[in-house]
Amino acid sequence: MSEQILEKLIKKVSKLPGLGPRSSRRAVLHLLKNKDKYLIPLINDLTEVAHNIRSCIECGNLDQDEICEICKNPSRNVNLICVVETVADLWALERTKVYNGKYHILGGVLSAIDGINPEQLNISSLEKRLQKQTISEVIIAISATLDGQTTAHYIAERLNPLKIKVTRLAHGVPVGGELDFLDDGTIAQALKARNEI
Amino acid sequence: MSEQILEKLIKKVSKLPGLGPRSSRRAVLHLLKNKDKYLIPLINDLTEVAHNIRSCIECGNLDQDEICEICKNPSRNVNLICVVETVADLWALERTKVYNGKYHILGGVLSAIDGINPEQLNISSLEKRLQKQTISEVIIAISATLDGQTTAHYIAERLNPLKIKVTRLAHGVPVGGELDFLDDGTIAQALKARNEI
Repeated sequence: MSEQILEKLIKKVSKLPGLGPRSSRRAVLHLLKNKDKYLIPLINDLTEVAHNIRSCIECGNLDQDEICEICKNPSRNVNLICVVETVADLWALERTKVYNGKYHILGGVLSAIDGINPEQLNISSLEKRLQKQTISEVIIAISATLDGQTTAHYIAERLNPLKIKVTRLAHGVPVGGELDFLDDGTIAQALKARNEI
Repeated sequence: MSEQILEKLIKKVSKLPGLGPRSSRRAVLHLLKNKDKYLIPLINDLTEVAHNIRSCIECGNLDQDEICEICKNPSRNVNLICVVETVADLWALERTKVYNGKYHILGGVLSAIDGINPEQLNISSLEKRLQKQTISEVIIAISATLDGQTTAHYIAERLNPLKIKVTRLAHGVPVGGELDFLDDGTIAQALKARNEI
């Protein structure tokens, strides 16, 4: 009996990205080691998040309010929209503290293999935002994978009639990266986009 | 505001063994991607486990009842007790389907560095079990680390007055292991404990 409840939980936890059966077992046993210290607070936090966190109706970011902190923030540049795949990418950009515009969460990239077509991504909502607001530039910050680049080109084409400047992140040598370990494509791109010191 | 709730949860999840800040963020975002499909069922399972799973008063195993399935099972050998560090180790032994005796969960190993002394381990409860029941053999199945082996010797000495046979797991070459990749200590032990084909 007990094994069933526990096993059900372990199986569910093992399905989370980055976890497998062994790490899931370890995590669950850790939680059970001290219920009041680990398990109950985690349940409380999960419940709080489940009840309070929702997607921003404007950009798709996660927040407690209908309109997220970033969309509401008057000190951010309202003329810039950065298109990202997921909230994780938004967080990654926010951590750099370099970007001060707004965001738009795409919800993924186009993929023939996974059957993701434009209707499943938040592209029409982006178009609506661009028609409604005065945007000077759309920065497409999505993965440099084949699917990501296909998506970037698709979006750039869709936005073409709106006559808004569409840019994408620069390709190049990662900071701290050694040339010897980089793939040829990155080196070629970095060479093409070289700039004066 | 929202960042605080989410960040609190991510921080909590990142403290679980095997997870770090990045995998924790990914796991939490995955849960939020579809609340009804992932987050709510996980909360329900965690709550069910929190309310129903407890430690067996006999051996320390996790179960829904006061006495666990293994301790209750009449088809298991009541004269054998296998001493393990954690419930994870019990599960590992159960998966082999080779052992048919009972268990005793120690709750850890002696450690000077972590300040774990004999009173913090379930050693006296083991002694009580051995005095109460007719046990023919105690198998010590704890890690082959320095602390583990110290603990094994300490337990063997504590049980000495009870005149019960105390054994430990064999050292040797792991099944499927290549000699070239093994440490000297293991090879030396495997050589000493060699047996006829």
